[in-house]
Amino acid sequence: MHISQKAQRCGLSPMRKFHPMAVEAKARGTKIYHLNIGQPDIPTPPAFFDVVKNFASPVLAYAESPGVPTLIDAVRGYYARLGVPLEQDDVLISTGGSEALMMLMLSILDPGDEVIIPEPFYPNYSTFIYAAGGVIRPVPTRPEEGYRYADRAKFEALINERTRALLITNPGNPTGVILRPEEMAMLKDVARAHNLYLISDEVYREFTYGGEGLRTMLSFGDAADNVVVVDSISKRFSACGARVGALISRNRELMQQCMKFCQGRLAVATMDQVGAAALYGIDPGYFDETREEYKRRRDTVMRCLKQIPGVICEEPHGAFYLMAALPIDDADAFQAFLLQEFSDRGETVMFAPGASFYATPGKGRNEIRIAYVLNCADLERAIELLGKGIEAYNRR
Amino acid sequence: MHISQKAQRCGLSPMRKFHPMAVEAKARGTKIYHLNIGQPDIPTPPAFFDVVKNFASPVLAYAESPGVPTLIDAVRGYYARLGVPLEQDDVLISTGGSEALMMLMLSILDPGDEVIIPEPFYPNYSTFIYAAGGVIRPVPTRPEEGYRYADRAKFEALINERTRALLITNPGNPTGVILRPEEMAMLKDVARAHNLYLISDEVYREFTYGGEGLRTMLSFGDAADNVVVVDSISKRFSACGARVGALISRNRELMQQCMKFCQGRLAVATMDQVGAAALYGIDPGYFDETREEYKRRRDTVMRCLKQIPGVICEEPHGAFYLMAALPIDDADAFQAFLLQEFSDRGETVMFAPGASFYATPGKGRNEIRIAYVLNCADLERAIELLGKGIEAYNRR
Repeated sequence: MHISQKAQRCGLSPMRKFHPMAVEAKARGTKIYHLNIGQPDIPTPPAFFDVVKNFASPVLAYAESPGVPTLIDAVRGYYARLGVPLEQDDVLISTGGSEALMMLMLSILDPGDEVIIPEPFYPNYSTFIYAAGGVIRPVPTRPEEGYRYADRAKFEALINERTRALLITNPGNPTGVILRPEEMAMLKDVARAHNLYLISDEVYREFTYGGEGLRTMLSFGDAADNVVVVDSISKRFSACGARVGALISRNRELMQQCMKFCQGRLAVATMDQVGAAALYGIDPGYFDETREEYKRRRDTVMRCLKQIPGVICEEPHGAFYLMAALPIDDADAFQAFLLQEFSDRGETVMFAPGASFYATPGKGRNEIRIAYVLNCADLERAIELLGKGIEAYNRR
Repeated sequence: MHISQKAQRCGLSPMRKFHPMAVEAKARGTKIYHLNIGQPDIPTPPAFFDVVKNFASPVLAYAESPGVPTLIDAVRGYYARLGVPLEQDDVLISTGGSEALMMLMLSILDPGDEVIIPEPFYPNYSTFIYAAGGVIRPVPTRPEEGYRYADRAKFEALINERTRALLITNPGNPTGVILRPEEMAMLKDVARAHNLYLISDEVYREFTYGGEGLRTMLSFGDAADNVVVVDSISKRFSACGARVGALISRNRELMQQCMKFCQGRLAVATMDQVGAAALYGIDPGYFDETREEYKRRRDTVMRCLKQIPGVICEEPHGAFYLMAALPIDDADAFQAFLLQEFSDRGETVMFAPGASFYATPGKGRNEIRIAYVLNCADLERAIELLGKGIEAYNRR
């Protein structure tokens, strides 16, 4: 039976490929500290559940294809507070940021069209780009430079007649890199100069630890046709399971094309949208508390990582991930070792091996992504296990 | 800015294109009877809301990529009662039947690959097929034959080396056609003989009015690699707004490819899946009541339509739609007339013009789809308005 080329190019999730080994380790009684997935442990604000519990319509009907109007207005209100006025038609509600990316790639990429992305990058970008027949052109970075990527020459060297878009994650997953205002402006200028979409995945906007403030590519008034923002409530409100995101752009032609895909799948889940709208009304103190908690975690991880000889890791400034280069040969083999051969007092640790965050074959093999989504005590123990694991692995 | 060819080939929803005229008519005080959209008015069983209201986890976390295990088990239990045993890996939960179709088309179609579909068909199929770069090859039918399509020669005449799948909707939207068991077997044989996927969209399975019983293409044990069923709770439990569907197949290679897209978008909304699982446990009497109600509605519409001279409409046997050929030149122009120029005692009626259900240009222009999702009194009045409208339109 025929399988499409595009499906064959896609891979299974690197974050989940060690799942069977983890199940076996747990069956042996080993406790695993999970630094491998970006599922926050922060409670979802009760506003979501309150609204859902009071949902009064006897028929759970389809929502409007572009999104429930109260949610679109809530999103607009949020951006207005960032100084970015949006029209109703500038916002399409999506089933998570994931669907926003899928609809966008289907709308802008023909087979062979290219998207420039700094690597390491969120691996699922590949799935959305390959689904549309597209090609990824990675911008190289280095662990020693903290994975910073905003170098105009590096981007322009990759632009050709098939280039359709630049795609960045800001704050970054997996690197935690935050663009400086002048770097944002530079990327916007490159997109304008070459008539490209500038796709800015800003789902971690609130997670900044250096007082950076909340930034968005939408703030550039002179790039309305270029800038497309991918947004989501998943991380902002610790509501990953609601699957509510948004595609935001002032490019009306693009939004009308994306609307075809919105109508094709009819609607996003109704109750989740109503709950999401309520989340936008919570006390902003929630973000300060959450930010402080993640900052403590980031500081804890960095402090502990520095005690492991040979680890290269510059301090990340945002999101709740970091990439680190380890003094090992292969992070995949190391992860398998940690799950199958290593344990310390009946405990071990999981992370996301680095290679899958790279499009360039062979890169990132000695790197890992750490999601600091555990409490500080657990993080200390998890990094201690990482250090002991490196020692044991290199002693084999 | 570049827009992809595939997006350009997709259309905006025909069901929604008269929305602006409807808004204007309502602003003038005209009451509109909506026969144009398939949104049932039947209450969603309270089991859904009960479970959602008792959702106790403080963190609304991602669900598993293939679906929440209790929901997968509920779907398996439902099919076991139809005599179809399924393994856990045979079921992928999707965001409505829509996402199941999108993931499927992305997995099986390369640009230029063909899908054979009897026309008229559900217009959104085009969006999913075009998104994957595919081509639709329509099997012709006739209103005078009640749009029946299960003719082996007609299907085989369209098969070539680019054909990848047969796609049918059973019971049918927009026609209400139900395949007889021997017709199902014939299509299965064609798929097997030519090594094609047989995609059976069975979301209206419970809506049968001739005592047909609940049927599924999955019941053919000798076509495990060919048959793919698209399913959904939307119509079955009047829960369209939950956006919970499923892709079901025993073809493991295919399901593993589709799993890549499941992992790419991470998960389906968590609470909606938990609610959906509860729906599968409700008293089966619900289906009998719902079926009786829709049968009354079907009979009401048919009785009233027969009183309009020149209408061609064979009795549909399932779903809650019918197609009818009207004694008019152009259903689009007629709909515009009904909204902009016609009213009877301050009331008018909307339907879905037929042309958009056809891939063949020019076909279906004098046809309409009626969704009988109103109560019987409203349906009588709506069809009366249709008849008066036809008279007025042809008198212009």
